[in-house]
Amino acid sequence: MTDSARVPDTASDVEQRLERQLAFVREIDRLKGVLRRTTLHDGSRRENSAEHSWHLAAMALVLAEYAPEGTEVSRAVQLCLVHDIVEIDAGDTFAYDTVGYADKAAREQAAAARVFGLLPVDQGIALRAMWDEFEQGETPTARFANALDRLQPLLANLATGGGSWHSAGVTESAVRRRMSPIQHGCPSVWPWVCAAIERATREGLIRTDEAGV
Amino acid sequence: MTDSARVPDTASDVEQRLERQLAFVREIDRLKGVLRRTTLHDGSRRENSAEHSWHLAAMALVLAEYAPEGTEVSRAVQLCLVHDIVEIDAGDTFAYDTVGYADKAAREQAAAARVFGLLPVDQGIALRAMWDEFEQGETPTARFANALDRLQPLLANLATGGGSWHSAGVTESAVRRRMSPIQHGCPSVWPWVCAAIERATREGLIRTDEAGV
Repeated sequence: MTDSARVPDTASDVEQRLERQLAFVREIDRLKGVLRRTTLHDGSRRENSAEHSWHLAAMALVLAEYAPEGTEVSRAVQLCLVHDIVEIDAGDTFAYDTVGYADKAAREQAAAARVFGLLPVDQGIALRAMWDEFEQGETPTARFANALDRLQPLLANLATGGGSWHSAGVTESAVRRRMSPIQHGCPSVWPWVCAAIERATREGLIRTDEAGV
Repeated sequence: MTDSARVPDTASDVEQRLERQLAFVREIDRLKGVLRRTTLHDGSRRENSAEHSWHLAAMALVLAEYAPEGTEVSRAVQLCLVHDIVEIDAGDTFAYDTVGYADKAAREQAAAARVFGLLPVDQGIALRAMWDEFEQGETPTARFANALDRLQPLLANLATGGGSWHSAGVTESAVRRRMSPIQHGCPSVWPWVCAAIERATREGLIRTDEAGV
């Protein structure tokens, strides 16, 4: 990052900087067209990654008191806002799709370079760092955001009588593994999640492990 | 706000608090079903208020350097996240619909009381205060968020060859009036907006004032 990138000093520099920012703002509109496997809570249609990101960010505000010690809540909100932007190029990879996961990282790295690269250099670096932090999941802030990213589709699947659990035919232990980041990213909510998975399995929303063999 | 509302001390209090928070999280899922007049940039469908709110919040991050002196950027992001939540009950009122605007305030006040009232009392008050701050538009933070709320559909209409400007038959001076909060809420971007409106009028995306008479 150079000083001239951060503090433009000619009219033309200022205009170019704004144009790059607006190019990014226009480009990310495409996230509204990336469909996830989960549906809205009323089951009417599949959810897209932009509205999913909004839901996560709002959850970060409302569930902030359950975040791990050391979480910066405002930054967690921001991580939620940018965490799926790479899907503009890379698409959404379904949580239980082991084939899709094989090249997910490579597809998403290339997408991050292109999409965040639309911004002025200093901002591209800053937003890319947020995305990297979310992906690496090592800070308390990122662990919290990751936990919300698991909890949000759980709520949708519970609301729709099983939702994407059915279509993927996943079993109780697979769901519990998928949800496990909640244990450290939103620890006080974990007992609620475990109880919800057990109840959903009992009620037939999730296959038992025996039935999955 | 009582201390017992903020710091619950029995297991049952904790559970009740979490249940109220999750009830709110489930309820706001409905914002994904509230349609606005503007479309996505590719024109494929109308935008909903949840993905619109995500777009605004991301814009608050990227355009933060243009916010008025005294803006708290993290709070501006949060104002963007909650600014349309009342539409779950009150619906979206089209910017150029003078009839709909007559009872907009009353409908939205009732909605705010119900929807934010789902939360634990202390959080309901805090989120309601964010919504009020956005609506009143008096702080630099709120002026910035309001400016983004005008700029975002402008970009969509420019991208789609006129979009909701056409369907409403609005004229250049009506668009300029509608965009005027940008002048004080995002002052360095205002010259760009004026130039864009002039160009759009010249190119027939917006009716001239003469044609509107």
